[in-house]
Amino acid sequence: MALIVQKFGGSSVANAERVMNVARIVTDTYAEGNDVVVVVSAQGDTTDDLIEKAKEINPKASKREMDMLLASGEQISIALLAMAIEKLGYHACSLLGWQAGFNTSSVYGAARIKKVDTARIKQEISEKNIVVVAGFQGINKYDDLTTLGRGGSDTSAVAIAAAMHADRCQIYTDVDGVYTADPRKVKNAVKLDEITYDEMLELATLGAQVLNNRSVEMAKKYNVVVEVLSSLERVPGTIVKETVKMEKMLVRGVTKDTNVARISIIGVPNVPGIAYKIFGKLAAKNINVDIILQSVGRNDTKDITFTVSRDHSELALEILNNLDVLEGLKIECDDKNVAKVSVVGAGMETHPGVAATMFQALFEADINIQMISTSEIKISVLIDINDADEAVRVIHNAFIPEE
Amino acid sequence: MALIVQKFGGSSVANAERVMNVARIVTDTYAEGNDVVVVVSAQGDTTDDLIEKAKEINPKASKREMDMLLASGEQISIALLAMAIEKLGYHACSLLGWQAGFNTSSVYGAARIKKVDTARIKQEISEKNIVVVAGFQGINKYDDLTTLGRGGSDTSAVAIAAAMHADRCQIYTDVDGVYTADPRKVKNAVKLDEITYDEMLELATLGAQVLNNRSVEMAKKYNVVVEVLSSLERVPGTIVKETVKMEKMLVRGVTKDTNVARISIIGVPNVPGIAYKIFGKLAAKNINVDIILQSVGRNDTKDITFTVSRDHSELALEILNNLDVLEGLKIECDDKNVAKVSVVGAGMETHPGVAATMFQALFEADINIQMISTSEIKISVLIDINDADEAVRVIHNAFIPEE
Repeated sequence: MALIVQKFGGSSVANAERVMNVARIVTDTYAEGNDVVVVVSAQGDTTDDLIEKAKEINPKASKREMDMLLASGEQISIALLAMAIEKLGYHACSLLGWQAGFNTSSVYGAARIKKVDTARIKQEISEKNIVVVAGFQGINKYDDLTTLGRGGSDTSAVAIAAAMHADRCQIYTDVDGVYTADPRKVKNAVKLDEITYDEMLELATLGAQVLNNRSVEMAKKYNVVVEVLSSLERVPGTIVKETVKMEKMLVRGVTKDTNVARISIIGVPNVPGIAYKIFGKLAAKNINVDIILQSVGRNDTKDITFTVSRDHSELALEILNNLDVLEGLKIECDDKNVAKVSVVGAGMETHPGVAATMFQALFEADINIQMISTSEIKISVLIDINDADEAVRVIHNAFIPEE
Repeated sequence: MALIVQKFGGSSVANAERVMNVARIVTDTYAEGNDVVVVVSAQGDTTDDLIEKAKEINPKASKREMDMLLASGEQISIALLAMAIEKLGYHACSLLGWQAGFNTSSVYGAARIKKVDTARIKQEISEKNIVVVAGFQGINKYDDLTTLGRGGSDTSAVAIAAAMHADRCQIYTDVDGVYTADPRKVKNAVKLDEITYDEMLELATLGAQVLNNRSVEMAKKYNVVVEVLSSLERVPGTIVKETVKMEKMLVRGVTKDTNVARISIIGVPNVPGIAYKIFGKLAAKNINVDIILQSVGRNDTKDITFTVSRDHSELALEILNNLDVLEGLKIECDDKNVAKVSVVGAGMETHPGVAATMFQALFEADINIQMISTSEIKISVLIDINDADEAVRVIHNAFIPEE
């Protein structure tokens, strides 16, 4: 008998029919002899609707009250899913974040899980209940409700799996696994049977969006075996774990990320400490900088170019424009015309040919590379946004030929 | 400086505009130098919408999960009201039932308040917060959410007022007080400045519906001064308390209740213990029996007639039809054509003329009386439902003449 944690997102429980579908998956897993803990998000657009209600009354509402408001969303979905499970003849018990033992930090809207006290979950399992837990939420030291921020329900599920030493954490989505490229764009994209945490982290960061990054980091830290699979089709998904068997496939995935802005600072004086001041200030405001490129400029100056996510470009510009050391310098920002395309694969670090193959594919397609960044398991290039889909296709074909 | 508990029902917080209106009433009370605890219900039709969602999935959902579902309604309204109060420049803190210390019995859907642990409310008041509490809900000894049943928010408000020794408990509604009759039906109905708990209890039971009965019982028990007033017009309401100054007005109100069914059992054998068996069985299923009439029948039998609320008539019939001692007897039920009209007034017990005046008024209007019931402070008659509005008018005119 195994312990399985299953997580279903908002679209999987958006209406009565889908809630019943989820109940069938859950009860089938239970009927196979497993203990089951299910984590669910708020139904469909509930969270957005609640945010809208709040804005109408007070656009600057305190984050404590926003969390109080938003946490009601999962409360509705856990109760409905428990009722659906009862309808199928099984015993269920829904638990709110605080009832399920989710102790978090006090940062409303973006709380971190500090500890999951699993006593209540264990008790309900021992009483033969299927346990339905509200994702995305917890309680802080003041006994106030907190939410974990975007993608929090994935993290809730992995946290329970870690605390309970579950045999598997299944994340149900609307795709049936992790693909080597977006299957809607690249017709010979291949579904991966397995992928490492590190590869998944790179893919998640790069916009594959099947799994929230925080949850993958937590899964890696506590060695939780995660499976990404579809709530609509009953087929095996992709397993995310520490090591995967070596396959002939060198590259795990080719991804496109259009949430990118390129910022350039022209003519920076060639004195020490300036890069530290620039990137220290950005980091202090929680702005993640990705690719950084420094080139020799004219007259003993240099040009510094880097990328940030598009959402952060305005704030980044504001910070740079207020930085004493950059006074009078030209700062350019392109937050509309660039995209980042990357290849990811744990095997590539020992294969120097990967970069060459990638660049050749882009050259042959006449696609200009603006910036390059490499890590042990990925190579990213910044290119024109209009070339992005074509770039993904030609790179994918170079590594995973069309059948 | 006084401590005021205010309660606003679902229609008072149905949309953003009304929530802001409530926030203005609350902050005005606070600005006058009072400490304020506000109790709110779920917005408008939220509770009904949630019940609908549940029915779609499982019409026989467990009561535990129903309470989990329904409790989300007040969670939304307390957060929104706290945000509205913040918007007006005041500090607010919303608290769920369990955070506000509402410990209840374990009966889901109809929990009784066992204790209000006011530590958290007091702490928030000491920090100069306006405290916004979710009505209708609490927590049981299993740490599970419970709801108090219909009208529970009134009871929540009175319970806080009792536990905190509040100076006043204001129940805001869509009418501006308690009237001698329904002012929409009786044009010379008079608003009462004051009314006793006992009178209010009779009025509440009889369908005046401004205050839930349980809350009046609790107010009486703990001597909480309650004020019924309008959330739309800023005028003084009606004060409910232990004793009121004697006024010339003998009768406090004339009410109509159409939620009545009349059940008759014909030809009951004239042996001891049968009434006990009938009414004992009904009481065991929580069916309240109101007027009871026993008449001599033919051949040493008797006829027993009584009224129950219309919602209970089906269940009552089922119980009676399965009762051994009634086997073969004719059982009739009229749950469509009868109404109960009552006069209420603490003064009437010492004035034997009240009943005579009431019956005369009905006689002169040619209205037939089917059953009569009297208590120390009320007289009720069962009549044809088509005569009910006319009966209220003529009785009201007999005691409170048109100006």
